[in-house]
Amino acid sequence: MIKAGIVGATGYAGAELVRLLLQRDDVEIVWYGSKSFVGQEFASIYRNVIHMTADMCRDDDMEAIADAADVIFTATPQGFCASRISRTILKKAKVIDLSADFRLKDAAVYESWYQMAHAAPDFIEEAAYGLPEVNRNLIKDARLIANPGCYPTCSFLTLYPLVKEGIIDTDTIIIDAKSGTSGAGRSAKVPSLYCEVNESMKPYGVASHRHTPEIEQQLALAAGKPVTISFTPHLVPMNRGILVTAYAAMKKQLSAAEVKAVYDSYYQDEYFIRVLPEGMVPQTRWVEGSNFVDVAFQTDPRTNRIVMMGAIDNMVKGAAGQAMQNMNLMFGLPENTGLKQLPAFP
Amino acid sequence: MIKAGIVGATGYAGAELVRLLLQRDDVEIVWYGSKSFVGQEFASIYRNVIHMTADMCRDDDMEAIADAADVIFTATPQGFCASRISRTILKKAKVIDLSADFRLKDAAVYESWYQMAHAAPDFIEEAAYGLPEVNRNLIKDARLIANPGCYPTCSFLTLYPLVKEGIIDTDTIIIDAKSGTSGAGRSAKVPSLYCEVNESMKPYGVASHRHTPEIEQQLALAAGKPVTISFTPHLVPMNRGILVTAYAAMKKQLSAAEVKAVYDSYYQDEYFIRVLPEGMVPQTRWVEGSNFVDVAFQTDPRTNRIVMMGAIDNMVKGAAGQAMQNMNLMFGLPENTGLKQLPAFP
Amino acid sequence: MIKAGIVGATGYAGAELVRLLLQRDDVEIVWYGSKSFVGQEFASIYRNVIHMTADMCRDDDMEAIADAADVIFTATPQGFCASRISRTILKKAKVIDLSADFRLKDAAVYESWYQMAHAAPDFIEEAAYGLPEVNRNLIKDARLIANPGCYPTCSFLTLYPLVKEGIIDTDTIIIDAKSGTSGAGRSAKVPSLYCEVNESMKPYGVASHRHTPEIEQQLALAAGKPVTISFTPHLVPMNRGILVTAYAAMKKQLSAAEVKAVYDSYYQDEYFIRVLPEGMVPQTRWVEGSNFVDVAFQTDPRTNRIVMMGAIDNMVKGAAGQAMQNMNLMFGLPENTGLKQLPAFP
Amino acid sequence: MIKAGIVGATGYAGAELVRLLLQRDDVEIVWYGSKSFVGQEFASIYRNVIHMTADMCRDDDMEAIADAADVIFTATPQGFCASRISRTILKKAKVIDLSADFRLKDAAVYESWYQMAHAAPDFIEEAAYGLPEVNRNLIKDARLIANPGCYPTCSFLTLYPLVKEGIIDTDTIIIDAKSGTSGAGRSAKVPSLYCEVNESMKPYGVASHRHTPEIEQQLALAAGKPVTISFTPHLVPMNRGILVTAYAAMKKQLSAAEVKAVYDSYYQDEYFIRVLPEGMVPQTRWVEGSNFVDVAFQTDPRTNRIVMMGAIDNMVKGAAGQAMQNMNLMFGLPENTGLKQLPAFP
Repeated sequence: MIKAGIVGATGYAGAELVRLLLQRDDVEIVWYGSKSFVGQEFASIYRNVIHMTADMCRDDDMEAIADAADVIFTATPQGFCASRISRTILKKAKVIDLSADFRLKDAAVYESWYQMAHAAPDFIEEAAYGLPEVNRNLIKDARLIANPGCYPTCSFLTLYPLVKEGIIDTDTIIIDAKSGTSGAGRSAKVPSLYCEVNESMKPYGVASHRHTPEIEQQLALAAGKPVTISFTPHLVPMNRGILVTAYAAMKKQLSAAEVKAVYDSYYQDEYFIRVLPEGMVPQTRWVEGSNFVDVAFQTDPRTNRIVMMGAIDNMVKGAAGQAMQNMNLMFGLPENTGLKQLPAFP
Repeated sequence: MIKAGIVGATGYAGAELVRLLLQRDDVEIVWYGSKSFVGQEFASIYRNVIHMTADMCRDDDMEAIADAADVIFTATPQGFCASRISRTILKKAKVIDLSADFRLKDAAVYESWYQMAHAAPDFIEEAAYGLPEVNRNLIKDARLIANPGCYPTCSFLTLYPLVKEGIIDTDTIIIDAKSGTSGAGRSAKVPSLYCEVNESMKPYGVASHRHTPEIEQQLALAAGKPVTISFTPHLVPMNRGILVTAYAAMKKQLSAAEVKAVYDSYYQDEYFIRVLPEGMVPQTRWVEGSNFVDVAFQTDPRTNRIVMMGAIDNMVKGAAGQAMQNMNLMFGLPENTGLKQLPAFP
Repeated sequence: MIKAGIVGATGYAGAELVRLLLQRDDVEIVWYGSKSFVGQEFASIYRNVIHMTADMCRDDDMEAIADAADVIFTATPQGFCASRISRTILKKAKVIDLSADFRLKDAAVYESWYQMAHAAPDFIEEAAYGLPEVNRNLIKDARLIANPGCYPTCSFLTLYPLVKEGIIDTDTIIIDAKSGTSGAGRSAKVPSLYCEVNESMKPYGVASHRHTPEIEQQLALAAGKPVTISFTPHLVPMNRGILVTAYAAMKKQLSAAEVKAVYDSYYQDEYFIRVLPEGMVPQTRWVEGSNFVDVAFQTDPRTNRIVMMGAIDNMVKGAAGQAMQNMNLMFGLPENTGLKQLPAFP
Repeated sequence: MIKAGIVGATGYAGAELVRLLLQRDDVEIVWYGSKSFVGQEFASIYRNVIHMTADMCRDDDMEAIADAADVIFTATPQGFCASRISRTILKKAKVIDLSADFRLKDAAVYESWYQMAHAAPDFIEEAAYGLPEVNRNLIKDARLIANPGCYPTCSFLTLYPLVKEGIIDTDTIIIDAKSGTSGAGRSAKVPSLYCEVNESMKPYGVASHRHTPEIEQQLALAAGKPVTISFTPHLVPMNRGILVTAYAAMKKQLSAAEVKAVYDSYYQDEYFIRVLPEGMVPQTRWVEGSNFVDVAFQTDPRTNRIVMMGAIDNMVKGAAGQAMQNMNLMFGLPENTGLKQLPAFP
C-alpha cells in the first residue's frame, strides 16, 4: 500500500489527484493538505467523493507529511515546493511537484519568466522532468519530479518526433493552444466567472506566457540546439481539455505516410499516445477524463508547412494523471496502473 | 469471462455501455450491433475508444447475437426489443432491454402512451423491472430485464422512502425534472443542434411525457394504491445529468431529522445512493460520470410541503450503468463491479 | 434630453442599463457610479461599449447625482438605496431602485427575509412597485420606483390572469424557477466560477429564497387574499434567462381555449407580453436580449392541474429593461421607447 | 421605404437579417424566401420575432422577388445565387449575395476550392466585394454584392493595414481562427449536435478550408502581389463569435506605438472597427450581437514576429450585419443605419 500525501488537495488539480488515487486499491491517501480548508471534511468541498472518504483537510506542513507518506504531491502555487523542499523530506518521501518550480533547468530563466527568486536552486538538477514518454528511466530513479505543465505536455508531445528527426524547421514553430477553464484554477476572480468565460473566447499571455520557456527547453533538448517559439494560449468555454495547433515549415519533403511512420515509430508502444489515422483530427472530447494524448498532423504542400495537432485532458495528462503515471514509475508499477479509464462521451 | 452483445451500440447509451464494459477485465464485448454503421469500425465513430478496440459494427440480429453472447443489451428505440424477443433467445442469453418495451406492466398503458401496439405482451410479466435498489432479488433470477428510464430512476429513488412510509400525500406529488441533452440521443434533428440548445432552457412533453406512467406505476407499488402525478421534464444546456425537484404535502409532521432517518433507513446500505447531509442540495456535477444517486430534501413548514431532490448521471445510473449493475446481479457478481469510478469534477 | 445617473453601473444589471441607455438619442448618462472602479474608464471594464463612451466611473454619492441627473437608477446591494434615500434627493430626481429595498410593503416581512433592519420605512408606502403591466398609472406619477425582482416579474406575470380571475386554487401554487447565472452578479465567489456552474444544475434557496414574499405579496394583491407558495429557484449553465414552471389545481373546469382567452384578455394589448399559441412552450432563447415575456400554459385533465410557463431575460425584463420601461412611463414617453430590440438567435 | 426580399430566410444568417431588418422603420421585408418552410409562418420557426411579424414563408423564385423588392439578399448555399442571377433581376433589384458565389474573382479558383462549376462567370467582374472598409465606393454604385465570408472578414481586417504598409512578411502569414457553432448553419447533422460540440474543441478543414483563397485574394490586393497563407479554422463551443489569431514575421522593426499608429491611421474613422488600447486583447463577447470588429496586436521581439488578433460576431459583421451595411451604402444611407446596437454582455 502506497501512502500518499497531497498538498493543495482542494485545488482543481489536487482534487483530481484525489479522484484518481481514491479509485485505487493499492494507494491510501493519508494527508489532504490545504491552505484554506484546514479542519473541514474534504468531501464537503468536493462532493463528488462524498461517502467515499470522511477525511479532514489538514495543513501543508511538508515535513510532517513526509513522516506519514511515501509520496507527496504538491499541487500548489509557484514557489511553494521550492520554499519547503529539503534533503530531510526527500529522504523520507518521494516528491512529485505539479508546480513549475523544478521544471526549468536554468534558474535565471525561471526567475525571469516567473518574476520570483528561486528558493531552492540546488534541487533543480536532481529533479527529473516528469514526462514519462521521453524521460522514463530518469523518472524511475528520481526522488523529486517536476511534473510538466499542461500546455508543455500537449505541445511537446505533438511536436517531438518531427523536431527530434529534424523534419521541421525549428525557427518557424508557432504553437496556437486552446485550453478549457479548469486550467485557471479554483480561485475566485472575476475573469474566471461563468458569465465572463461562457460564450466567449480570448487569447491571453500573448508572447509572454510562462509555459513558453518550458516548451522551448524541451524542444531544444530534442533538437539538440536552442529553440525559440511563438506560443499563444487561448481560453475556451469548456471545463477540460487542451488543443494544440502547431505550425512549422518542413525541412524535408515527406509524404503524409512518411510523416505518419515517424510518429508511429516514436509512439506506437506508448499506451497513452494515440496517433490518429490519416484524416482524423484531435478533439478534446475524445480524451476527456483520460490520460490519453491524441496526435495528428496535416501536410500542406501549398505552403510547405505542416500542421501538427494534439489534444489532452489538462487535468489528467496535463496534471494529476501524469503525476500518477510518474508515481507508478517511481514505485515500480505498470505505468498505466489506475489510469486505464476511458474517456467519457458525451 | 462474460460475453456481451450490444444492440444499438452506436447510440449514446450504447456507447456508454461500451465504455463501461471495455474497462472490465471480466467482460468481453463480442458484438457491436448497429443499424447505421454496419461494417464500420466502432472506434472510428466513438473515438474515445480508439486504440482500445478494433472491432467492427455488425447488424442487430438478436438470434445470432444470442448464439455468441451470454448477455444482450438492447439500447434501441421503443418497439425493437419487443419485436425480436423470443423464448429461443432467452434460453441462450440474458436480455437487458434499455428501452421502455417491458417497463410497464399493463400493455394497454404502454400502447396508450407510446402510441404503438405491444409486440410481445406475453413477456411483460416475466420481465423484471431493473431497479436493483428495490427489485434486487427479482433481478438476480431474471432472464429479461426492463432497465428503467432515466427520469423514473431519479424520480422514484428520490421519492420512494417517503411514499412507502406514507409520509407524503401521493395526491399532491409534482415532479419538475431537468435533463442534460444526451437524453435526446444522437439522431440528427434541429432541436438537438448545439445552437438550439445552448444558452436556453425549455420544458417539453408537458403533461404528456411517456415516463409519467412508469413513475406512477412504481410509486403505486410503493404506496400500495394508484398514484397520479404531475411530471414536467426540461431540457438543460449540459451534456449529462438529471436533476429532480419534487414537491408533496406532508401527511405527518416530521422534523428534518426524522425525515432524514427515514431516508437513511432505506438507503444507508445502498452503495450507489448517497443521502446528503442536511443543508446540502444535489447538483448534477457531483454525480457526473458515476452510478451514484444523490438525494436530499427540505421541509417547508410555511407550506406544509416537503421538497425532495435527486440527481443522477442519465447516461450511467439512468441507462448504461444501471444496466451493468443489473448484469452484475444476474451473473452473481458484486453489484458495483466496474461501477466504482468516481465522478470527475470539473 | 433625460439625464440619467446610475449607481452600481459596474455590476451586471448596471452595465445592462448602460447598454440600453447608451443606445438612445434622448438620454444622456451623466454619472457612472461605482464602488470598486472609481476613476477608471467605464469602457475599460465593460469593453462592449469601448469607443462608445470615454466616461470615468465616479462614486456613489446620491445627493451629488441628484444634482446632476433627472433620474437615478440604483443597481446596488440590498440596503444601499434605503440608507441613502431622502426627500431632498426625491425633490431633485426620480429614483428607480433595482434592489429589493422598497418592494415589500411590510417592513417586518423585509426584515425577516432579508435579515437587516429597513433604513427608510417611511418611504415604503410612497414607492410604486414598478411592474408596468399592473401598475402603469401608479408608476407614471411616482418619484420612487421599486423595480421588481427577476423571479417575481416572471413568476407573477405567468400566474397573474388566472389568480386574478380565481381560476386556480392559490393554496396549491408551486413555482419551480430556473435562472441563468448572470442573476448571481459579478462578484468573485467560487460558486459562480465557470467550472462550478458549467455542466451542472442545482436548486438553491429551497423554501427560503428572498423573492418568495415578493411573489406572494403581488399574488395576494391579485387574489384579494393572502397567498402562500412553494418557490424553488435553480441555477442553470447559461448566461441569461429565467424560465418559470408553475403548477396549481384548477378551481374551474376550463378548456385550453377558455384559459387562452383569459390570458389574451389581460395581455393582448401589452407590447412586451407574448401569450404563445397553443402547443408552444416558452424557451429562454426566444426572449434573450429583449424585454419580452413569453407566457404559455398546459391544462392536465389527468391531475386537474394546470402548468403555467413563462420566460424572460433576467437582465432586461428582469432588471434593466424593466427599469427603463418604468423610466419611460415616468417621463411621459411611449413605454417601449428604446426597448424594441428583438431577441437575437442564436 | 426600402422593400427587401430574403432568400434563405430560415437559415441562421437569413434569420439574423430578418432580426436586423425588422428593427428598422425604413425597411419592409416583403418576401421571406425559404426552401423547407414554404407556407409556414416565419415566426413559428424563429419565435424570437413572434408577434412582430405574421408573414408566411414563400418560395425562392428570384425573378418574382425582384418584382416585389428593391433589394434581394441571398443567404443560400453555394451555387444558388449564381444559378439564378440574371440581367433582368439586376435591372429590377439590387442583389446582395451572402454565399461565396461572387467573392472569388477567378472562376477557376472558385471551381477548384468549391468543387462545382460556376454557373454565372459573366457576373463575377461586376460583383463588388462587399467589405465597406476597403471597397466603400465600389459598393455604393454596385448592383451585385459579394458579401464576404465570416472568416475572411475577420482575418482580412485584422491583417490589412500591416500588409498594405508592407510591415509584415506575407510569406510567413499563419491564421489560426476560431468560430462559434452558428457558422455551421441550421442543417441537422450529427457533428453539429449539442453533445458533439459542447465541452470540446477541434480544428477542421485543415489546409483545405474554402475561405482560404478568399483571404489570399484580398490580402494579395492589399499587398500588390500574390499571397499564400496557412489558415486553420476551429470549432468552439459557443453560439457566436469569430476570433482570429494571426502570426507573421515583421519586415520592419516597429515599436508597439508605431504599429498602433498604423492601425489607427487606417481605422480611426471607421465606425465599426475598434483598435483596442495597448495591452487589451479582443474577446468575442465584447462584440457579440454587434457589427463591431475589435482589433489588437502584440509585438514579440523574441521571435521578431507580431501576433495580430481580431474578433467579430460571425452572424453580424460576418454575415447579416455586413450585408445590411452594404445595403445602406447602396441606398445612400449612413452606413451604420440600424447597426448601432451595442454588444450585450453577459
